[in-house]
Amino acid sequence: MESADGVNRGENGHAIENEGPLDEEVPRFWSQISERNMTYAEPLLAKRINTTSQIAIVGANLCPIESLDYEIFENEIFKQDWRSRRKVQVFQYIVLKWGFALLIGLGTGLVGFFNNIAVENISGFKLLMTTKFMSKNKYFEAFIVLASCNVGLAAAAAALCAFLAPAAAGSGIPEVKAYLNGIDAHSILAPSTLFVKIFGSILGVSAGLVVGKEGPMVHTGACIASLLGQGGSRKYHLTCSWLRYFKNDRDRRDMITCGAAAGVAAAFRAPVGGVLFALEEAASWWRNTLLWRTFFTTAVVAIVLRSAIQFCATGKCGLFGEGGLIMYDVSAAKVTYSEYDIIAVLLLGIIGGLLGSVYNYLVDKVVRTYSIINEKGPAFKISLVITIALLTSCISFGLPCFAKCIPCPADVPVKCPSTVSGNYKNFQCPPGHYNDLASLFLNTNDDAIRNLFSTSTTREFRISSLFIFFAAIYILGIITYGIAVPSGLFIPVILAGAVYGRLVGRLFESLSKLDTGLFALLGAASFLGGTMRMTVSLCIILLELTNDLLLLPLVMLVLLTSKTVADNFNMGVYDQILKIKGLPYLEAHAEAYMRTLVASDVVTGPLITFSGIERVGNIVYALKTTGHNGFPVIDEPPFSDAPELCGIVLRSHLLVLLKGKNFSTDRAFSSRNVFQRISALDFGKGGSGKGIKLEDLDIQEDEMDMFVDLHPITNASPYTVVETMSLAKAAILFRQLGLRHLCVVPKSQGRPPVVGILTRHDFMPEHVLGLYPHIKPHKHA
Amino acid sequence: MESADGVNRGENGHAIENEGPLDEEVPRFWSQISERNMTYAEPLLAKRINTTSQIAIVGANLCPIESLDYEIFENEIFKQDWRSRRKVQVFQYIVLKWGFALLIGLGTGLVGFFNNIAVENISGFKLLMTTKFMSKNKYFEAFIVLASCNVGLAAAAAALCAFLAPAAAGSGIPEVKAYLNGIDAHSILAPSTLFVKIFGSILGVSAGLVVGKEGPMVHTGACIASLLGQGGSRKYHLTCSWLRYFKNDRDRRDMITCGAAAGVAAAFRAPVGGVLFALEEAASWWRNTLLWRTFFTTAVVAIVLRSAIQFCATGKCGLFGEGGLIMYDVSAAKVTYSEYDIIAVLLLGIIGGLLGSVYNYLVDKVVRTYSIINEKGPAFKISLVITIALLTSCISFGLPCFAKCIPCPADVPVKCPSTVSGNYKNFQCPPGHYNDLASLFLNTNDDAIRNLFSTSTTREFRISSLFIFFAAIYILGIITYGIAVPSGLFIPVILAGAVYGRLVGRLFESLSKLDTGLFALLGAASFLGGTMRMTVSLCIILLELTNDLLLLPLVMLVLLTSKTVADNFNMGVYDQILKIKGLPYLEAHAEAYMRTLVASDVVTGPLITFSGIERVGNIVYALKTTGHNGFPVIDEPPFSDAPELCGIVLRSHLLVLLKGKNFSTDRAFSSRNVFQRISALDFGKGGSGKGIKLEDLDIQEDEMDMFVDLHPITNASPYTVVETMSLAKAAILFRQLGLRHLCVVPKSQGRPPVVGILTRHDFMPEHVLGLYPHIKPHKHA
Repeated sequence: MESADGVNRGENGHAIENEGPLDEEVPRFWSQISERNMTYAEPLLAKRINTTSQIAIVGANLCPIESLDYEIFENEIFKQDWRSRRKVQVFQYIVLKWGFALLIGLGTGLVGFFNNIAVENISGFKLLMTTKFMSKNKYFEAFIVLASCNVGLAAAAAALCAFLAPAAAGSGIPEVKAYLNGIDAHSILAPSTLFVKIFGSILGVSAGLVVGKEGPMVHTGACIASLLGQGGSRKYHLTCSWLRYFKNDRDRRDMITCGAAAGVAAAFRAPVGGVLFALEEAASWWRNTLLWRTFFTTAVVAIVLRSAIQFCATGKCGLFGEGGLIMYDVSAAKVTYSEYDIIAVLLLGIIGGLLGSVYNYLVDKVVRTYSIINEKGPAFKISLVITIALLTSCISFGLPCFAKCIPCPADVPVKCPSTVSGNYKNFQCPPGHYNDLASLFLNTNDDAIRNLFSTSTTREFRISSLFIFFAAIYILGIITYGIAVPSGLFIPVILAGAVYGRLVGRLFESLSKLDTGLFALLGAASFLGGTMRMTVSLCIILLELTNDLLLLPLVMLVLLTSKTVADNFNMGVYDQILKIKGLPYLEAHAEAYMRTLVASDVVTGPLITFSGIERVGNIVYALKTTGHNGFPVIDEPPFSDAPELCGIVLRSHLLVLLKGKNFSTDRAFSSRNVFQRISALDFGKGGSGKGIKLEDLDIQEDEMDMFVDLHPITNASPYTVVETMSLAKAAILFRQLGLRHLCVVPKSQGRPPVVGILTRHDFMPEHVLGLYPHIKPHKHA
Repeated sequence: MESADGVNRGENGHAIENEGPLDEEVPRFWSQISERNMTYAEPLLAKRINTTSQIAIVGANLCPIESLDYEIFENEIFKQDWRSRRKVQVFQYIVLKWGFALLIGLGTGLVGFFNNIAVENISGFKLLMTTKFMSKNKYFEAFIVLASCNVGLAAAAAALCAFLAPAAAGSGIPEVKAYLNGIDAHSILAPSTLFVKIFGSILGVSAGLVVGKEGPMVHTGACIASLLGQGGSRKYHLTCSWLRYFKNDRDRRDMITCGAAAGVAAAFRAPVGGVLFALEEAASWWRNTLLWRTFFTTAVVAIVLRSAIQFCATGKCGLFGEGGLIMYDVSAAKVTYSEYDIIAVLLLGIIGGLLGSVYNYLVDKVVRTYSIINEKGPAFKISLVITIALLTSCISFGLPCFAKCIPCPADVPVKCPSTVSGNYKNFQCPPGHYNDLASLFLNTNDDAIRNLFSTSTTREFRISSLFIFFAAIYILGIITYGIAVPSGLFIPVILAGAVYGRLVGRLFESLSKLDTGLFALLGAASFLGGTMRMTVSLCIILLELTNDLLLLPLVMLVLLTSKTVADNFNMGVYDQILKIKGLPYLEAHAEAYMRTLVASDVVTGPLITFSGIERVGNIVYALKTTGHNGFPVIDEPPFSDAPELCGIVLRSHLLVLLKGKNFSTDRAFSSRNVFQRISALDFGKGGSGKGIKLEDLDIQEDEMDMFVDLHPITNASPYTVVETMSLAKAAILFRQLGLRHLCVVPKSQGRPPVVGILTRHDFMPEHVLGLYPHIKPHKHA
C-alpha cells in the first residue's frame, strides 16, 4: 500500500534522522524520497548490494515490498467479532478450511496433469517431425524443424513472461519461500502470474530448454491457494459471509503452505515428499496441525494423478505415454552393496557436493548478469531466450551427429532402435544400430532421466558419451536459469547428477556390485544435496520417485555427504536467489553480532505517534506524508495520569475508520455505535494490492478539525521490548512470533512511553551492518 | 532443587497472597507449605484433578517438577564467555555436536539390536520347551512350563521396575515428550531408568505380555542422549573442557530429540519415520538444523542395524532368525484396488477410528485404576504384574485348545506344520494339520504380526479364529498398559489393528481385489491413527516397515479417516497419559478463554526482588524460605534515578556466586576480579538433580551483613510483557520462545518496575480456571 504514493519505505521512518518536530521535517522528508527515487534508475543488481531491503526484484523489475500481518491483531473490533462467533461459524470455518485444502489439491493435481499431457504432446509432435525428416536422410531440414520449433516455443514463453507477468520467470520457489516468511510483493501470487506460470512452463519445457516444471508447479500450487484465499471479490459480488474468516494473512499463509506442498506432490508424484518439502524448505512458521492439512492436500493430489493416469492408460491422451508423469521405477534392480560401494558412494557424495556448490556459484553469476540484460526491456528478455533456445538446439542436435553408432544389444526387452522416445534412439544410424548421445539429447528431459536411471543396461551409454552429455547439460543448466521463462531447477540438477552418477558407476564398474542405474540415482541425490541443501525431503522425494525403499541408507549417506561438503562453500541455491532478488528474508536464528547490540542501537527516531483520540487532520497528514504501516497510540492526560502506551494501529485500519467518518467535534470516547457503522468484515485484510487507498477517502475541510477515537482499532496488546534488550533476543522474538511491528519502550521512567518501532527491515544484516560498519559479521561463523 | 527443602512450589510465589512485608509473611508461608505437604498423602490420581501442576506422577510416585532453562541467559558471564570463544572452540563444539549424534545413533542401534536378540532367544527357548512337552501330549506340563516362564519373567521385570526405577514403567514416550516440552522431573532420564528400561523391556516382552518394545526404545534413546549430555562428571573427574558447551538445557534438548528419533528408527528400522516421529510427536521446539542432525542419527542407526543383521545371517545369534528385527515385507503382493476397496478402506478407517478412541478411553480408566494399586507399594505392583501375566498365559494357551485343526494347504512355500515359529503352528494337531489360533497366540508378538501381514494366504485363518484373537488382544492390550513394566503401546495397537484389518478383509473377500495381508496392514494403520493420532510419521513408519510404497495413497486415506473420526471423541493416547501423570504440558496454541484475560489477572504478588547490590543475608534468607528459581533484580537510587528493572537472576547462579564469596563491606560495584574467581564453567547447568545446594554453602554470620553485586549474573535482557497484555498473547510468547520466567511490567509510571513473574504454572488451564471458575473452557472449541 505504501507504494501507492511512490514512497518506498519500511513500516517506520528510519529515513528521518533529524530530531525536529513533525512540521519541520516535511521538506527534508520529501527531498529524501526524491533522492530515493533517483536510485531506482540504477539497477539494484549492478550495485550487488542491497542496503535498503525495502525494494526487491520481482521479475527483473524493482518493486516495493511490504510485510505481512501474521500477528493476531487484538483490538476491540477483533474481540467483539471473536466473542460473537457462535458454534455454527466455527463449523463454517472448519468446513471451509478443509474444503480449501481439497480444492487446492484438486486444482494443483489437475494442473500438474494438464501440464504433463501438454508437454508430452507438444514435444512428442516436435520429435516426431524431426524423426520423419531424419528417416529420409534430410538432416539439415530436420535441424531446421527442430530449431524453429524450439525457438518458436521458447519465444512464446518469453513473450508471455515479458509482457503479461514478469514475476512468473524463474523457479518460483524462492518467491514462495519469501511469501511464507512474511514478505508481500504484490505480483508474486497474482492471477496473471498463475496463468503465465502454467503456460510459460509448458512452452518452455516443450521447447527443449534445460528447465524443469517442478519449481513452477510449486509456484502454481501457491498461486492457486492464494487465489482461493482472497476471500472472494466484493467488487464483483463474488463473496459470501463464510469467506470472511479467511480475510487475513495467517489463514492465507497456511493455505499457501498447502499449495506449495501440493505443487511438489503433483510434480514428482511424491505426496509425503511434498509435505516434507513444505516443512523443510518452504515454510518459516510451522504448526503440527498444518502437517495434517498439507498431508490431506497432497493425498488429494496423489489420488487425482492416479485417476488421471488410469484414464490415460486407455489411450485417450494423444502422445502421452506411460512416461508422462515422471516416475522412475528402479525397484527391479537388486540392492546389494559391498565396502567398495560405500567408498564409491562417499566419493560420489564429496564430488557431487563440490560440483553442486560450483553450480550454485555459477548460477549466481549468470543470474546477476542476465538481470542486467533483462532490465533493459521485453525485447532484450525475448532475445536472450531465443539465443539460449538456439544454442540448446544446436548442441542437442549437433553433438549426436559426431557420435558413433552402436549395434543394438541382443537381449533387451524394449524396442531397439526406436524412433520417438525410448532408450535406444535411431538418429542417423543404420537399422539395428542406435546413437547413445541422441538417446539422451533428443528426448524430453524426463525421458532422458528415465534412460539414465534404467537398470540392467550397464553398457548402453559409452563413457565418452556420458562425459559429453554431462558437460553439455551442466553448462546449459547454468546458463539457462535466469532467462525470462518459468524454469525449475530440479530437473536440470537431477539430469546432470544422474549422468554424473552413471559416469562414476561406469568407472567403478569392475569393483562395484551396484547397478549403474542406481549409481545414476545416487549421483542425482548428490547433486541435489549439493545445490538445494535439503535432506529429508529430497530423500523422500527420490525414494517416492524411484519406488525403492531399500536404497534409503545409501541415499541418506550421499545426501549428508554432499550437503556437508557444499555447505562449506556457499548457501543453497534458493537462498542465493532470495538474496540476489533482495527479498528481506528473516532467518530463524539471530546473527552472532546482534548479541553485541541492543534494541535502541538500531531504532532511529523521531516516531510519528497518535493520541488515543486524535484530530482527523493529523491522521490524514501522517498517512499522506509517510509510508508507515503501524503507528503507536499514546494515551495522554486527561485520559491517563501520565502519557502511556495504549497500543498500535495499522494504516489499513485507520483508512477504514476514516472512511466510516465516525468523527466527533470534541475529544471524547466514541459511543458504541462505531461497531454498528463499521463491521469486522470491513477490517478484514484483502489480498495484496487490494484495500482502501488514501485517495479513496473524501474528507471535507471541516471534518479535518474533528476528532476520532482510535481505541476501538488499537491493538492494546502489542509485543514490546525494553530498549536495553539485546538485539539478538529481540530478533528471536520478532521472528518466532511472526511480527510486523515490535514496540521498543524506554527503560527509565519519565520519558515518552515508546522509543521506536522495530520492523523486519531493522533486523536485516545489510541494515545493521550499514549502521555499524566496524562490526565484522562473521566473527563466529 | 526446590524439592530439596520440601517446598514443592513453582518458580514464583503464588502461594503468598498477603500483601505484607517479607518478614511478616513467613509464618503464614510455612503454614501453607505444611498444608501443601498434607495433600501429598492423598493420591493425585484418586482426586482425578491436578490443581497444582507443580507435582507430577513419575513411576506412580508423586514427584516435584521443575521447568528447564531453554532461554539463552544473557548475563555478563555468558557474554564474557561468548566473546572469548575462538574459532577452535567453535570447531570443538561442532565436532562434539556431531560426535554425540554419532554416539547416540550407535548406542541406540546397538541397544535395539541387543534387545531383539535377547527377546528372540528367551522367548524362543520358552516356546521350544512348551512345544517339546506338547509333542509328547503332555498338555498340562506344557502349560505349567509356559505359565511359570511367563510369570517368572514378568515378575523379574516388575521387581526391577518397582525397586530400582519406578520411572521406567510404561511407554516412556509421554515422559520424553514432557521433557522436550521443558518439564524436568529428575528420574525420567536417570541412568537407573535407562538400565531398567532396557532389561525390563526385554523381560516383559519375553514374558509374552501384550506389550511392545517400541515406546521403551524411544525412552532408551532419550536416556542415552541425556547421559551423554550431562557434560561428564566433575565429581569423578570424567569431564573435559570440550564438554562445557553442553552444560545447558538447550543443547541437551537437541540431543534428546535426536535420541527419541534414534529410538523409533531402531525399533522399526524406520530412519525417516524416526525423524518424523521426533518432529510430529516428540519435539515441542524444532529447528531446521535439527532436522539434519536427527536425520544423521537415524542414518547411523540404520547402518548399525543392517550390519548387525548381516552378522546374524551367519547364524551366530542363537535363536535369532530372520524375523528378529521386525520388518514385514508385503511388497510381494500386487497393489490393485477398485472402487469397492476404497469403500472398504473408508469403512476400515471409520471403524478403526471408533475402536481406537474407545481403546484410549479404556486405557485411561485402567491406568487410573492401576495407579491407585501401584501407589500402595512394590508388593502390590508385582502382584498386579503377576496377575496379568498369568491371565495372558491362560488365554494364550487355553483358547487355542478349543480351536479345530486345519489341514495344511498343499502349495505353501513355508514349512507346515511348524514347531517353534512360522505361519502354521502344530500345537495339539495331528501331523499335516495346524492350529490357526496357536499360530497367533503362541508366538512372539512380532511373529504374530508377521503372520497376519503375510500375503497370498487368504484362508490361513478362519474368521472365527480372527474374531477370538481380536477380542482377546484388544482387551489384553488395554488391561496390560499401566502395570509396572516398561510397556510400549505400538505393538499391541498394531497387533489388534492387523487382526481387525484381516477380519474385514475376509468379510470383503468376494468383493475386493486387495490381498488380506494388505488389509491387515491397513487395519493396523487405522488403529494407530485412532489411538496415537499421528499422521505423516505413522504413514512413513508403516511404509518403511512393510517396504511397499505403492500402498501410500491407501495408508494415507485410512490414517486421515481414523484420526478425523477419533479426534471427535478424545485426545491421543500419549496426551491422555501426560494429563493423567499431571505433567504440565504447554500446548503450542493459547486456549480460547485466555483472550478474555490479561497478564495481571493471573499474576499474584508480592514478589521477592533483589537490589542490584544486595545484602548477602537477604539473598540467603530468600533462597531458604522460597522455592523460587528466578528473582527480578531492581536497580534503585543512588544507582539509578528511579527504581528500574535491571533483569533477572537464577537461583542456581546465585548459589554459585554465594559459594564464590565475592563479598564486599559496602554497597559498590564489584571489580572485574569476579570473573577471575568464578569461571563461566561454574555457571554451566549440570544435569537434573546436580548442582550446588543451599546446604552446601558455608556462610559465616559476619558475611551475612556484607554486600554482593548481582549485576554480573543478571540477565539484563529478560522478556517482558505489559500487565495489560492479553494472556493469550503472553502465552504464545512464553511457549514460542521456550521461556521459564516472563516478567510482567506495569503499564503506568510511578509504580514498582515489575509487577510479577509468569511461569509455566500460570498458563496451565487448571490454574487459570481455578482462579476464574466462571469461565467456561470450551466456549469456542
